[in-house]
Formats: sequence, C-alpha cells, structure tokens
Amino acid sequence: MSNNCGREKEKLIMYQAFDKMQRHFPMSAGDGAYSYSRNSQLQREVLDGAKEMVRDAIIEKLDIKSLLSASINTFRIIDLGCSIGPNTFSAMQHIIEAVKDKCHYQFSADSSNIIPEFQVFFNDHVNNDFNTLFRSLPVDRSYFAVGVPGSFHGRLFPSGSIHFAHSSCAIHWLSKLPEMLLDEKSPAWNKGLIHYVDAANTAVVNAYVAQFDKDMEIFLSARAEEIVPGGMMVLVSPFSGYRYLKFFGSSLMDLVNEGMLDESLVDAFNVPVYFPSPEDMTKVVEKNGCFSIERIELTYPQSKLVDEADAKSLMTNLRAVLEGVFINHFGSKIADEAFSRTILKSEDISAWMKANYEKPCQLFVVLKRK
Amino acid sequence: MSNNCGREKEKLIMYQAFDKMQRHFPMSAGDGAYSYSRNSQLQREVLDGAKEMVRDAIIEKLDIKSLLSASINTFRIIDLGCSIGPNTFSAMQHIIEAVKDKCHYQFSADSSNIIPEFQVFFNDHVNNDFNTLFRSLPVDRSYFAVGVPGSFHGRLFPSGSIHFAHSSCAIHWLSKLPEMLLDEKSPAWNKGLIHYVDAANTAVVNAYVAQFDKDMEIFLSARAEEIVPGGMMVLVSPFSGYRYLKFFGSSLMDLVNEGMLDESLVDAFNVPVYFPSPEDMTKVVEKNGCFSIERIELTYPQSKLVDEADAKSLMTNLRAVLEGVFINHFGSKIADEAFSRTILKSEDISAWMKANYEKPCQLFVVLKRK
Repeated sequence: MSNNCGREKEKLIMYQAFDKMQRHFPMSAGDGAYSYSRNSQLQREVLDGAKEMVRDAIIEKLDIKSLLSASINTFRIIDLGCSIGPNTFSAMQHIIEAVKDKCHYQFSADSSNIIPEFQVFFNDHVNNDFNTLFRSLPVDRSYFAVGVPGSFHGRLFPSGSIHFAHSSCAIHWLSKLPEMLLDEKSPAWNKGLIHYVDAANTAVVNAYVAQFDKDMEIFLSARAEEIVPGGMMVLVSPFSGYRYLKFFGSSLMDLVNEGMLDESLVDAFNVPVYFPSPEDMTKVVEKNGCFSIERIELTYPQSKLVDEADAKSLMTNLRAVLEGVFINHFGSKIADEAFSRTILKSEDISAWMKANYEKPCQLFVVLKRK
Repeated sequence: MSNNCGREKEKLIMYQAFDKMQRHFPMSAGDGAYSYSRNSQLQREVLDGAKEMVRDAIIEKLDIKSLLSASINTFRIIDLGCSIGPNTFSAMQHIIEAVKDKCHYQFSADSSNIIPEFQVFFNDHVNNDFNTLFRSLPVDRSYFAVGVPGSFHGRLFPSGSIHFAHSSCAIHWLSKLPEMLLDEKSPAWNKGLIHYVDAANTAVVNAYVAQFDKDMEIFLSARAEEIVPGGMMVLVSPFSGYRYLKFFGSSLMDLVNEGMLDESLVDAFNVPVYFPSPEDMTKVVEKNGCFSIERIELTYPQSKLVDEADAKSLMTNLRAVLEGVFINHFGSKIADEAFSRTILKSEDISAWMKANYEKPCQLFVVLKRK
C-alpha cells in the first residue's frame, strides 16, 4: 500500500468541498425536441474529426503490455463530461476497438487469450441525466458500464486505477465564472457582452485565461493521481466553433432594447467557457509536470453544419448546450425567447456564415502519464 | 492475464442477453409522498437488524491484509439492489467504518498509513432512479461513488475486482415469474391469489423455489467471477415480513367482486418474490461450490412497525416496494385503488397484527469467496 493514503484522504475531502461550491449546467436532458441527445451533431463532428487520431495514438503510443499483468486484466476507460449519449457510446466503442487491435499487435503469439475485460466509467456532473444515459446504453456493448457523478475539476477515481482517459467537448467549460467580469469597477467588466470572443478588451480575455489555468491545474492534478504510469489521456476541445455565441448575445440585447429584459441582467451574465489554444494547454501541462505531451495541435475536421452554413441546426445544437446556463440566469421564459429569436434569424446567420467562412478547428491533445 | 478471457467475453454477452429479457420493477422513484426514498423504514429495520452482525463478520472473518497489497490499495464494495437511498448510504458507510477498524487491528504498527481508498459501486436495475440516488449522495462521504445499471442476475463487474459485496432486501426478487403459476392446466396454477405465502398448494411453492434456485445459481456464478479470493459477501433478506401481501390480494379481489376488475387479471398476476430459508440458501451455495458459508441463520431484529402494529406505515412502505409490479400488470388506476383501499383498512390490519403477532424475522448470510 502506498505511503500517502493519509494525504490522499485529505485531498479527497478538499476536492469534494470544491465540487460542492460549483454551479453546474448539464446538457438538456431527456430525448425531447431540444434535448442534447437529439441535438449533438456538432459534438459528433468534433468526435468524428478526432477518431483517426485517437486510434493512431493508441496504436503508436500506448504500451498495453506494461499496463496489464497476470493480476490486472481489466482495462479501465473514463469519459469525462460524457453527457447523455449517443456520442459517448461511439467514442468508447472506438477506443475499445483500437485497444483490442493493439493487444493483437502486442501479443501476437497467442492472440485469442490476451484481450482484457473493459470497464467504462461515464462521468459527468451530478445533475447530468444519468437515467437517460443508462437507458440508452448499447445492448451489444462488450464492456462493463458504470456511471460516475461529479465534477472532473476534482478527484473522481481511486489512485492509479485508470488506463485511458477521454474527454471531448468538455474541458472548455470553466468551473466558475471569473468574478471580475461582473465587477463594474474592474477593467475586465464585460458590459453588454456575454463572452470573451466578442470582447475587444484584453482584460476580459485574461480573466477567462486565468480561470482556465486554475481549473486545468486542478483537473491535471486529479488525473495524475488516477491514471496509472504509462496510461493515456486524450482531450478534444472546440476552438473556432463557438464564434456563434454572439448571436445569442445579440438576441438578449434585442430583448433589452424592447424593454423585455433589464440590461443589468445581461451585464451580469457571461458564458463560462474558454477555448484553449495549443499554447494555453502546453503551458498548464508543463507546469503540472506529471504528463508528457505526445501530440498537441489544432486540427480541421469536416463539418457538414458549417460547410453547408446550416445555421438552424447549428443554433439548435448550441441551444441544447447552453440552455442550462441561460435558464439558470435569466429564467425559462427569457431563455426560451432568446433561443427562439436566434433560431428565427437562421437565414441571416447562414448568410453571415457564408460571407465569413472559417474552417472549423479543434484542439487535439494526447498526454501520457509519466 | 488469465487464460479464460475468451470464455469470459462469451459469458458477458450471454449475461447481457439474459438481462434484456427480464422485466424490472424499481422501487417508486423521486421523493414524493409514496416514493421509496420516503417510505423505506421497513428496509431500514432489516438493515439495522443486521448491522452488528455485518461488523462482526468483517472484524472476525475478513482478512484485509490478504486482499490489499502495494499495488492494490483500493477496497471495492458493491451494493446489489441499492435502490435510491437513504438506506444504501447508511449500509455502505457502516461497512467502510468496520473495514477501517479492521485495518487498524491488522496493521497496528503504523496505523496512519494503511487505510485504503474506498470505491463504492451502487447497483440496481437500469430503470432504477439513479438521478435521485446520485443527487442524494452524502456530501461528506469518504469514498468514490459509482452507479452500475443492470440486473444482478448476470455479470456486472470485471473478474476479481470486488472485495466486499452487500445486498439487503433484494435477492428475494425473482428474475421472472415461474410460467406455470399462470397456466390453468398446471397443478401450480395460483388462481385468485397473488403469492405463495397464502397458497395451500405445494406445487405453487415449488414453482417459486425452482425459480429462486435458478436465479441464485446465476447470481452466485456471476459473483464468483467478480469477487476476489478471500472477498466477502453479506446477504440479508426478509423472511417473515411479507405475510402482509395477502391484504393487497384481498383488495384486488374486492375490486373483482365489485365488478371493477376482471378476475382473470388477478389469476394472471403473482408477486415475483421468494423469501429463502437458511436451508434454501445453503443448498444453492453448496451446489455452486465457490463460496464458503461463514454464517447463515434466521435472526429476529427489532421492528417498531410490527411491534407497534403500525399497519398504516407498513402498508405505505409495501406500496413503495410493490407499486412498479402492480402498475405494470393492472395499470395505474387499479393499482392506486388497490393500494388506497388496503391502506384504508389499516385499523383492521393493525388489529389482525396484534391478534396474530409474529416476531419479524430475516435471513442473514455471510459467504467468503474460496
């Protein structure tokens, strides 16, 4: 048994206290018209864009022989910020297929006996709709499925128990909003805007970056405890895709101008997401020191939604992602009005997308526990 | 890596197919007036009645030194048929306290460094209300919490991954109803009754026993794969407590007599629970052969509900347990009517309880993986 159990226990308690302080906004639950489970093509495109690279990382860089042994024949995978499917099932199945193939390469002498058992831990915030997730688990899955409620900005698993960690479209969510964005006296006050992507003010950007650095340091410290030496972590995060946030902001301002919403409510609202660059991520990983960077780059996946300027689907996807955080701040009525108005502007947004075409871009990171 | 991975994989798939065939009836969800979370005193009494014995089993019979090592410092506990709390949290905390105390006894030289990390797997059917379970997890827990959807009549966990299995008020649920109970031509046709406890007909009892034997053999085979050698399993099951089922049966027959319900619907209904005796359980454990019996006996816990003849609370508790299976067969309207009428008869039932007092009794089993 390791000698730092006492320290570990203290940490566990600290992490839980931290977890409790946070506000969480899950993807829209259930399987209704505006649910995440029916409106997650955007995340699907991010996932599909990374698939070949995930497979390459496993085949080229994961040493399964060193992770498994006569006494450890279970390969444990975690999906951090899994939401409610179906994307998470596709991602997990893809990883398992690649690990099985790597087993065959590494143990070619007697390949029928070397496939481990797989256990997949689906993680998301405690207010994620795990009932929907569990009820839609693929019936023909070849793994033991487990749900893990809690913030990934904290400890979730026992020390040294995880072989592969995956997170797609999740690490850009901040654990909380930097307070100075809401402070009239701060240079980072983000008046009339709801995100840094539209802000000319670098103080606003810096406030977001500082919060991302803090969150990612806690994230990496927790994962460093949980992932076995030689274990792998793949992080995929949107980078360009969210320049559409401003359309929701402008719908909110329309409501202000029509006297339906108090402007101070918009001033007091910012979307708590930061889209890290390779440089941002390199900095925090190097500072943490527990992981080697195997690959880090911006990649340019196919996006039917963007290439076809399908603004309606795109806005409906973003609604499923943002509904929780909007409703929490503005209430259901205003949130619904802001989303409906934005979706009604689909033709204009589509025209804007064509005139301002930008190839969709995402951050792809492969880390290995030292 | 073990040599039977291929065989394991086949088994896993077989178990899942089996799981899919079954009908599952969870305890009443949420936290409303008739929910299980607010109406589980009966199960709490069973649990409390077993607490001291669970602790004794851990202190006297669990060799923690042999289960943990330098490379394995996580102690994994499963609660099979956990439902939605709060009883499961109390049971898990109690087990963890006892294991910690045993650690101190076994590693007394340097007791501050030997407490393992704990991971608790909360298991119930996929249609259990895991959202409620997760949202009511104790905030000051000292373990990593995980939810596992699926039938315990099948594999749920990787081979050799579990150190302690617990199940209270769950193993008496059959995976399905013996078909012959519903067959007019069978000697086991249970006409006009809803359970074997009221049946004079031994063919009915035998049909229930045969199904229990089949289910428990599958249960034990699955657990034998999952629990490490030296690992412990505690099973607690009500034995006498459910002689009250007949009152629900008689309310159904009242509805038949008033023309509100077709008698054939009652004939086609039986509650799928069998309350095993020490002899029943000994037989299946010995046939399975993978576990040693450390303790098996009927015990007589304190029951305020029974001792005070509190029929109203008792019937409301049973409603939370039985609602799913009644609604599935009769629909909500008839089920609600049958429950309401039974609860309205509380004074009569209370008088019957006093006149026919029987000390509540439960089966307590401690097994150890050979």
